[in-house]
Amino acid sequence: MFSNRRSLRIEWGDCDPAGIVFYPRYFAMFDHSTVLLIERALGMSKHRMYETYDFGGYPSVAARARFLIPTRYGDDVIIDTSITEVGRSSFSLAHRLTKDGALAVEGFETRAWVVRDRRGGLRAVPMPEDVVEHFKTG
Amino acid sequence: MFSNRRSLRIEWGDCDPAGIVFYPRYFAMFDHSTVLLIERALGMSKHRMYETYDFGGYPSVAARARFLIPTRYGDDVIIDTSITEVGRSSFSLAHRLTKDGALAVEGFETRAWVVRDRRGGLRAVPMPEDVVEHFKTG
Amino acid sequence: MFSNRRSLRIEWGDCDPAGIVFYPRYFAMFDHSTVLLIERALGMSKHRMYETYDFGGYPSVAARARFLIPTRYGDDVIIDTSITEVGRSSFSLAHRLTKDGALAVEGFETRAWVVRDRRGGLRAVPMPEDVVEHFKTG
Amino acid sequence: MFSNRRSLRIEWGDCDPAGIVFYPRYFAMFDHSTVLLIERALGMSKHRMYETYDFGGYPSVAARARFLIPTRYGDDVIIDTSITEVGRSSFSLAHRLTKDGALAVEGFETRAWVVRDRRGGLRAVPMPEDVVEHFKTG
Repeated sequence: MFSNRRSLRIEWGDCDPAGIVFYPRYFAMFDHSTVLLIERALGMSKHRMYETYDFGGYPSVAARARFLIPTRYGDDVIIDTSITEVGRSSFSLAHRLTKDGALAVEGFETRAWVVRDRRGGLRAVPMPEDVVEHFKTG
Repeated sequence: MFSNRRSLRIEWGDCDPAGIVFYPRYFAMFDHSTVLLIERALGMSKHRMYETYDFGGYPSVAARARFLIPTRYGDDVIIDTSITEVGRSSFSLAHRLTKDGALAVEGFETRAWVVRDRRGGLRAVPMPEDVVEHFKTG
Repeated sequence: MFSNRRSLRIEWGDCDPAGIVFYPRYFAMFDHSTVLLIERALGMSKHRMYETYDFGGYPSVAARARFLIPTRYGDDVIIDTSITEVGRSSFSLAHRLTKDGALAVEGFETRAWVVRDRRGGLRAVPMPEDVVEHFKTG
Repeated sequence: MFSNRRSLRIEWGDCDPAGIVFYPRYFAMFDHSTVLLIERALGMSKHRMYETYDFGGYPSVAARARFLIPTRYGDDVIIDTSITEVGRSSFSLAHRLTKDGALAVEGFETRAWVVRDRRGGLRAVPMPEDVVEHFKTG
């Protein structure tokens, strides 16, 4: 399945008074990794996706993480993201954030492929076949 | 002119490793105060504004702040916001964040009344008369 | 066990270009609810806790959430937080974020009671007896 | 004087429901640029600075920005940061965020060199001579 790697430096503003990353920020980092992975998998920007597919985005329906080693301002970390499962109207991803080769944070997300209904709500629908194909092909 | 007051507690996640508010967060607090003030001034939600006025929002074109006294997690602070100037297509606001009665942060913003042009850009246009009226009436 | 309720309004800056809350922000909301609950349970501020207990905080070791109904700018929501389990050196919490009475987001966290070791790392240690007592008494 | 350039991609989570960067996020971007510039100017990490100089950091005492062109998710932007003035106990910086060569946001900050006083407050003190020297030497 498709995967993606990026490196980033932990910013001062990502950290809390205990000097470690404020954990919601890890989910923000994972979200960006997910967006980048999907853009690469489909070969188009998120803007372009909205034009190409008549859809309402791919919001998270579930997310979780385990925080094993704290990271701090200035730490250079690597995030490896991969699609782990492709369903009919949803797909799952795993994120591994490592510091000096050691697993620091492990994250998992399930995303739904949605359309907007008339009242502004979001409803999961089957993913287009080419999207499924691209996600499955590494 | 119109003004608004709200109190809030500084959150752990607002603060940095030095134990004080990460200053971009003050601008986020001021932004929310601005949104609340405008809703009250016009007597409608921001969603409703988009329906009522055929416009693209009131983004900041300039913002500044002075940080006089640091605030920390758990501090209860008050933000007083007021419209200080109403122009043809823009208006200005001032924010005073106080802690135990002392001025801790002072902020200023200029907002433009914009429409989206064909290419997705934003262009300032004259504000509707009733908006000007509401802003000027305290 | 101890529980806590607070209401809050979704802010413009909490939301993403799809118009719904950027999901890492829910974890930030839950974090603040946890801090408030613990302060109430122990009857002291987080600052005071650091002075009273010779410890390094209660960081999350695991967090997860399910996103059932999207929430948007201006929505008034309620977050109910409760301690669900108290172990020897860790405890768990559940958060229920509701909108108009409907469950919109459900969150779970496990927090460890830690000390800092010599190299700046964090190590879980048994929680003080009075803390356990307070957490168990609603 | 010292200057620094970095490029970054606007993230989905940096943007608001209007689809443009939530402006407090620009200040967070500028803050990170400032931290990176100072690390390079002094040839040491912020952690190391705290060990080398007996001080309490270099918090912002004033910040301002002008928002000229909106930026959106996926935009690749460049931030050029330079020290513009070095005083006795404070220094100033300018940030220019450009998109496709056009100035989109212009930011200015004044930072104080502080020590913590006995009550936890922050007090500006003269900067060490070698710091002044490094800041002035490009």
